[in-house]
Amino acid sequence: MVKIALLGHGVVGTGVVKVIKNKADQLFELTGEQIEVKSVLVRHDYDVDYKEKFIYSFDEILNDEEISIVVEAIGGTEPAYRYVKSALLAGKSVVTSNKELVAKHGFELMNIADEKNINFMFEAAVGGAIPVIHGVRNCLKANKVHSIAGILNGTTNYILTKMIDEKQSFDVALKAAQELGYAEADPSADVDGIDTCRKICILADIIYGNHILPENVYTEGIRNVRIEDVDILKLVGGAIKLLGVAKRTEDNKLFIMTAPHVVFNQGILYAANDVFNAAQLETDNAGLMAFYGRGAGSLPTASAVVNDIVECVCADGTIYPAWEDEKPENVADYKDVPMQFYVNVSDKADKVENAFETAEIIYIKESTAFITEKITENRLNEKLKDFTVNSIVRVL
Amino acid sequence: MVKIALLGHGVVGTGVVKVIKNKADQLFELTGEQIEVKSVLVRHDYDVDYKEKFIYSFDEILNDEEISIVVEAIGGTEPAYRYVKSALLAGKSVVTSNKELVAKHGFELMNIADEKNINFMFEAAVGGAIPVIHGVRNCLKANKVHSIAGILNGTTNYILTKMIDEKQSFDVALKAAQELGYAEADPSADVDGIDTCRKICILADIIYGNHILPENVYTEGIRNVRIEDVDILKLVGGAIKLLGVAKRTEDNKLFIMTAPHVVFNQGILYAANDVFNAAQLETDNAGLMAFYGRGAGSLPTASAVVNDIVECVCADGTIYPAWEDEKPENVADYKDVPMQFYVNVSDKADKVENAFETAEIIYIKESTAFITEKITENRLNEKLKDFTVNSIVRVL
Repeated sequence: MVKIALLGHGVVGTGVVKVIKNKADQLFELTGEQIEVKSVLVRHDYDVDYKEKFIYSFDEILNDEEISIVVEAIGGTEPAYRYVKSALLAGKSVVTSNKELVAKHGFELMNIADEKNINFMFEAAVGGAIPVIHGVRNCLKANKVHSIAGILNGTTNYILTKMIDEKQSFDVALKAAQELGYAEADPSADVDGIDTCRKICILADIIYGNHILPENVYTEGIRNVRIEDVDILKLVGGAIKLLGVAKRTEDNKLFIMTAPHVVFNQGILYAANDVFNAAQLETDNAGLMAFYGRGAGSLPTASAVVNDIVECVCADGTIYPAWEDEKPENVADYKDVPMQFYVNVSDKADKVENAFETAEIIYIKESTAFITEKITENRLNEKLKDFTVNSIVRVL
Repeated sequence: MVKIALLGHGVVGTGVVKVIKNKADQLFELTGEQIEVKSVLVRHDYDVDYKEKFIYSFDEILNDEEISIVVEAIGGTEPAYRYVKSALLAGKSVVTSNKELVAKHGFELMNIADEKNINFMFEAAVGGAIPVIHGVRNCLKANKVHSIAGILNGTTNYILTKMIDEKQSFDVALKAAQELGYAEADPSADVDGIDTCRKICILADIIYGNHILPENVYTEGIRNVRIEDVDILKLVGGAIKLLGVAKRTEDNKLFIMTAPHVVFNQGILYAANDVFNAAQLETDNAGLMAFYGRGAGSLPTASAVVNDIVECVCADGTIYPAWEDEKPENVADYKDVPMQFYVNVSDKADKVENAFETAEIIYIKESTAFITEKITENRLNEKLKDFTVNSIVRVL
């Protein structure tokens, strides 16, 4: 019998209770153990049929020697960080869906788990039900990952899909997302890219082996995505998606960024619409690979959490090695890394042609839109200083 | 030190040698073992710089106690089956990319591996580099898989992509594929769906737990896909893809089939073009999920083979349980399972409307094309008996 404590009883927590209950037989078959949620840490009473499991003090869980796995589903860093750290130090494995916690404290928490020979697991923190963390860790053992680019936030992908498919402005699409419960009243964590940034940081931590703090990563949300650009790009089979991107530069530094990007209509990132998430990897031997699925929601998130629980139950000690501490000197200045840009200016096409000889002009009307060759952002800004720039969007 | 024998030295075999050599340090770090290809079974000499590893008799490998893992990369069932079975019986784990072997003899070989407490692994046999087998086995532990649909053959996907994007006929596109080396001189295993059928059988074996013999599965290739239908479907955002499909019916039987299907332009199957493969799963908790990547090629296939080797090296006994023997009574008659169909007839639209009240007519010109409601194939054939039918394509 494996006894679990659940911290938090919101969307994720209730999903975890449900899945563990509904899949009891399957989980027993897989692990040889009965898995039971023994305690649920809540702040106040609710009316559910397992109310007797509710407890109100984390210390009770910490001191309960029967509990070997703690599932953290509170979100945020306080008190989640304090609870998770204490649980790990007490020798209990922890499973979480909390990207903020992992992005901020993953280095420390992974190392504590390693020292204690237990596990700190967080598949649900990136891409919800999509096994991208598992895939990167377990399925690319004969590969080096050159780059990863992901649609990692369902709310913004929903909003951008509305803008693309229904020609809605950002404000209108945001309102629709809020009405459907996809976006919060304060949508900042989603639409300003903060959530995506945390997730790409976690993926980069794993792939590149050093902790990356989100506050050191250039992060641009989708508030300034213009419907005009969405429409122009549609003419050439392009779409704007909010991506977290990480890749190795030619001088072996890490380039990492969260920003809207143009993707073209071949491939999975273009096809991942609505609230779906997708992560695309470029590797040396396996080539291009992608994972796609539901990035959020009660049961999809619980699916990933419970999968991690099963890994913990079956594990004989720490499964995945900790990554190393941050090395800011290994992170490239994003403005120095060449890439292509979509640019929309109020200037005439011939002025664009003079300044950007190899650019591909894709639209000439009330404005001129073009795709640059690969160029650094610093150099682009220099070249554009005499232009009236309406928008710039990076191209994947 | 882990010593491996490689059977066969073609596209896959040479890739495996290359990847093991190039990733020696990475593999050592992951497994704590040096992994070495000790022997390569070939039929005749080639000029490579590891010629000293070539041997010409399988018995030498079988009797070599230093060799703990055999990689089978011969293809076909004879002598591959005999070699693999002998190796397993001799207590050597086997890794293969041979879908014909697994589809035909997987039940027996998995059970031998189980008895011997070793492993029979075949990630590369389905979807090449895509970790779909690993994902199904390891990442859906809190799920039931309702259905799986996959583009599992790169050659046919390349041909269909040419038909869709460049309006080439099947014959012209096949010729292009042959010139590029994507299709063989005798393209039957690919274009007649045989290869796809083997792969969907293997996935169904794992997901549903009983062996399915390919010869019992309805299999239709792409030779009869008409460019006219491809063009009509394009008008409504549809594309024809060769899919392997397996799902549970309402009465808990297994529906399994290989056939061209219409997929619409939302989602991953529609977006998977050229030689790429994709597998899409519907699950109860995780929802819709997909894996995408390179289904063939020397290094992508070797990537999956070497990943399996690492799993074998790290394993403490059999990792994955064997599935059970076939139960033909659990397999549904495909003609009795309702689904939607695209139908093209030479008859007029009003005749269609009379016979198929709820059908959606999508094209009225020299022919009439429509999408039926969900209907069994038996019932469809009855309804169509007074029509001049040009084509019928299932709709996913």
